[in-house]
Amino acid sequence: MTGGIELIPVRGLGEVTRGTDLAAMICDAVELVHHDVVVVTQKVVSKAEGAMERVDPDDPLSHKPLVERESVRILRRRGDLIISETRHGFVCANAGIDLSNVERGWAALLPEDPDRSARRIRDGIRGRTGTEVGVVVSDTFGRTWRRGVTDVAIGSAGLIPVLDLRGTADAYGRELQVTEVAVVDEIAGAADLVMGKSTGVPVAIVRGLGDEVFSPRRDDGTEEHRGVLGDVVRSPAEDLFR
Amino acid sequence: MTGGIELIPVRGLGEVTRGTDLAAMICDAVELVHHDVVVVTQKVVSKAEGAMERVDPDDPLSHKPLVERESVRILRRRGDLIISETRHGFVCANAGIDLSNVERGWAALLPEDPDRSARRIRDGIRGRTGTEVGVVVSDTFGRTWRRGVTDVAIGSAGLIPVLDLRGTADAYGRELQVTEVAVVDEIAGAADLVMGKSTGVPVAIVRGLGDEVFSPRRDDGTEEHRGVLGDVVRSPAEDLFR
Repeated sequence: MTGGIELIPVRGLGEVTRGTDLAAMICDAVELVHHDVVVVTQKVVSKAEGAMERVDPDDPLSHKPLVERESVRILRRRGDLIISETRHGFVCANAGIDLSNVERGWAALLPEDPDRSARRIRDGIRGRTGTEVGVVVSDTFGRTWRRGVTDVAIGSAGLIPVLDLRGTADAYGRELQVTEVAVVDEIAGAADLVMGKSTGVPVAIVRGLGDEVFSPRRDDGTEEHRGVLGDVVRSPAEDLFR
Repeated sequence: MTGGIELIPVRGLGEVTRGTDLAAMICDAVELVHHDVVVVTQKVVSKAEGAMERVDPDDPLSHKPLVERESVRILRRRGDLIISETRHGFVCANAGIDLSNVERGWAALLPEDPDRSARRIRDGIRGRTGTEVGVVVSDTFGRTWRRGVTDVAIGSAGLIPVLDLRGTADAYGRELQVTEVAVVDEIAGAADLVMGKSTGVPVAIVRGLGDEVFSPRRDDGTEEHRGVLGDVVRSPAEDLFR
């Protein structure tokens, strides 16, 4: 797609609390360039948006009633683990609620509309610097069949979440069969390589992606709003494992 | 985990055929440094190892009998699509067999033991240059619940496939809950961002990963052999969706 890509951790961001202007904070910490992608972890987005709930700090299972509340469907239970579908359509453990990297006595919920969260950060960055970037809100999900978690996109803005390569040819001139690439998820996972889970780096920049992954503006300057909820989340009807 | 990371596509590798020495080809094309990770697509590994079968070039479904043969269990069928488990334990579409980026009239099977394939490339690179690298063999898989494919690791060498962060603390000093990170899958997905599906770039370098993802040598110089098959593939017993 491109020459090379850099994954750049953004350090020294300071504490995020309800009302923190993430776009301003990011612009103060790093010099962004055209078509950077800014990856922001769900945890700081939820904190900035106040999507937090009090839980009993001495009860390790105190967030479980929240998990039930935030789920529209429970898919599996094993011991304390609940795999459920959230109202966004994400299928993940504990409805995406967790307690790590939040203050004791609090649980972070998923943002109400993570695509909108991403758009807000993107628009904030453009408003301050005039720079067109893509934004991904990332979270850590498990997968079926494979051990371990990876970071995926739960929201995005300014990007084509799933790149459709149908009709393009492979290196032999043969039309490609497997053709819809979830670029936003590959971006989220790549960014996690410089974030870690314990290092307190909640933002990373992915620099050098090809223009084809960015959502083009229309001739009148307006833009298509594509995001993870519409493009990546699979409807139950087309899902073979629900 | 680290400072920054570079994703570097390796261009100009030339045609890979049965018997091609991939390690030699890679060393000729790029100057590797200590703790680079070399990501090689399954397709060129299968070609180099001769894991290819003739198919009728005029029948788009001619590889389907191979899919049945290479599967130990069929999980779902919908139209022409088969989701099955391979004898490695991978759950994927069409037993990982496909026809893109191979010569007309041929289908590429998965390598017999992709961890061994990765070790062979790693040992070949060390033999030629003395450089210790990690190697990932990547392939393109779909996922449940989410649209689009991403690249994941089907084999690895010199790496800790799933990094266990249990016992480490988050930024608040609280012990992490979600703790096993499938680093090799994040590496494979990141590498795909510079490979694309149609650009004929079958190798990429991930440079700058922290030492903690590399498999340490024992005091006597021997190394632990950890790979994707043992560490990432989930046994049916611990899988909630099989």
